[in-house]
Amino acid sequence: MGNPIGEQTIAFGNPPIIVGFGNIVGPKEGEGLLKEYYDEILEDSLWGEETWEKAESKILNTAINSAIDNAEIVKNDIRYIFAGDLLNQLIASTFAIRDLEKPFFGLYGACSTMGESLILASMAVEGGFADYCVAATSSHFCGAEKQFRYPLEFGNQRPLTATWTVTGSGAVVVGNKGNGPKITHVTPGKIVDLGIKDTMNMGAAMAPAAVDTLVTHFKDTGRNPDDYDLIATGDLGMVGKELVVELVAKEGYNLGANYTDCGVEIFDSKKQDTHAGGSGCGCSAVTLTGYILKEMAKGTFNRILFVPTGALLSPSSSFQGESIPGIAHAVVIENI
Amino acid sequence: MGNPIGEQTIAFGNPPIIVGFGNIVGPKEGEGLLKEYYDEILEDSLWGEETWEKAESKILNTAINSAIDNAEIVKNDIRYIFAGDLLNQLIASTFAIRDLEKPFFGLYGACSTMGESLILASMAVEGGFADYCVAATSSHFCGAEKQFRYPLEFGNQRPLTATWTVTGSGAVVVGNKGNGPKITHVTPGKIVDLGIKDTMNMGAAMAPAAVDTLVTHFKDTGRNPDDYDLIATGDLGMVGKELVVELVAKEGYNLGANYTDCGVEIFDSKKQDTHAGGSGCGCSAVTLTGYILKEMAKGTFNRILFVPTGALLSPSSSFQGESIPGIAHAVVIENI
Repeated sequence: MGNPIGEQTIAFGNPPIIVGFGNIVGPKEGEGLLKEYYDEILEDSLWGEETWEKAESKILNTAINSAIDNAEIVKNDIRYIFAGDLLNQLIASTFAIRDLEKPFFGLYGACSTMGESLILASMAVEGGFADYCVAATSSHFCGAEKQFRYPLEFGNQRPLTATWTVTGSGAVVVGNKGNGPKITHVTPGKIVDLGIKDTMNMGAAMAPAAVDTLVTHFKDTGRNPDDYDLIATGDLGMVGKELVVELVAKEGYNLGANYTDCGVEIFDSKKQDTHAGGSGCGCSAVTLTGYILKEMAKGTFNRILFVPTGALLSPSSSFQGESIPGIAHAVVIENI
Repeated sequence: MGNPIGEQTIAFGNPPIIVGFGNIVGPKEGEGLLKEYYDEILEDSLWGEETWEKAESKILNTAINSAIDNAEIVKNDIRYIFAGDLLNQLIASTFAIRDLEKPFFGLYGACSTMGESLILASMAVEGGFADYCVAATSSHFCGAEKQFRYPLEFGNQRPLTATWTVTGSGAVVVGNKGNGPKITHVTPGKIVDLGIKDTMNMGAAMAPAAVDTLVTHFKDTGRNPDDYDLIATGDLGMVGKELVVELVAKEGYNLGANYTDCGVEIFDSKKQDTHAGGSGCGCSAVTLTGYILKEMAKGTFNRILFVPTGALLSPSSSFQGESIPGIAHAVVIENI
């Protein structure tokens, strides 16, 4: 039975198990720093589809099926699917999940969605509501640019604070039996908004939410940053990561060499022209299901804190003068 | 502890309690058939805000605070908020919830979101993860028309199969102690798509999903339609409701006089020019937190089946030739 601790955290008495996971990425990600960790690397971003949106659905569907295969279960063992993406009305997820014929909870936490889906899948399993659930998310550079910024054909310049939306999808099967690392704690995050309005600097907009969730997690659990082999925030990129280190220190916690950000790890920013780093729901999802969980399987890391971050804006909210609220959800994964 | 039964349903061993609820509607809804049941009726749809989107956030924030007051608890008793809306990137919810400073799970199930939020809030409470959670949603006619169809100023004609998006919000506080009707079963729905592409006939697009969830619920629980005092689907309107009756009958279950649809109940279609009825996340949310729960409090109904329905399309998916997938989530509420 889940045990609420502190302000926001849940400590799972019977920790759900990550019994399988899978991912797939686009060509640019396949040339990045974590290329050896992906299950599949696409040769082109359309993957035989007519539109980027349809390609994203195919990518997400493939990642989910890959995670189910990796878990050595069959589709019918899955009870519920928790997933979301960046496209308006979650069409990447809807059309990805349509043919899976399983109950679907559509989620939107911007780029924090991998955290949101893992938390809810864990709650469903630990609460006794399901034996196996899928948690998944995706993003696609071309679809995201078109929807949130400019048409690709326009060729806009990007400031150095901008990040590059990852094309890719990661999926996890969470179960109540089987082998794998366990989800022992979760700290769902609240919306934090310090008034930043620069849509080309999402790292700065999301950093305060990451700080809030990290500090709340440390207080709720009585743990310190050095209790973790790895702390990985979602997709703050280089600008946001530096802010997090600074702001967490002001709260009395020192993030050391064990702290990184998925957006910093994923691309070779200098060679790949990705400026401040990677972003998008897929960024933390493929880094988790690639680098992090594969290194956990080797024993490189045994206790990690995964904190995907999201910027809860829309083009309409920015046009209407609103600032950019952030959110971050924390998930502890342990080899126990 | 939750007990999964059948294919998709959960029977709660320790049913979560609806300890409070609140709603607020726009002027047109305030002239509709259920006007006596609303907590607050606005005189105009902007409510002092500069944009419809900001007005919708204010409406949702007000409904949540009203539900918290009605539950006779304080904001700090709430552990998690589950909410979503129809606007791209859920900006109505984000800006509504920002100042509540509580962990937020953003949900998108189109007009089924009140069902999705109630199911997840119930799982969080029954799983022992929280004492009190909020489940809420909203919609706004003007914002929805602008985003999904045509600018209001264009004055497009609407076919008789079209529905009218409700301006309003409903919120529920689900808790593990206190007085109120209980959520005894939930049947989360899967995506069902029979290939309908007419975006002006959402009722027909969503009806197959409602049928699938209803029939699955009856099979999973061994119950029949006449085990309920009231069965209310979400916002199919008149066209969709007729289809549901017909298609459920083909599966061997007869929906009788106890069956209605929130989209049929909410407006006086002939006088109010709302064609096939009401729709939008707010439609089922205000009908639940107005008519249904208030009549349950009087004992008019003692066991109801609430089945909000959603059409998981976006303008992009329709432009790209996709059909309209539907989803419906069922929630059983009982005076026990």
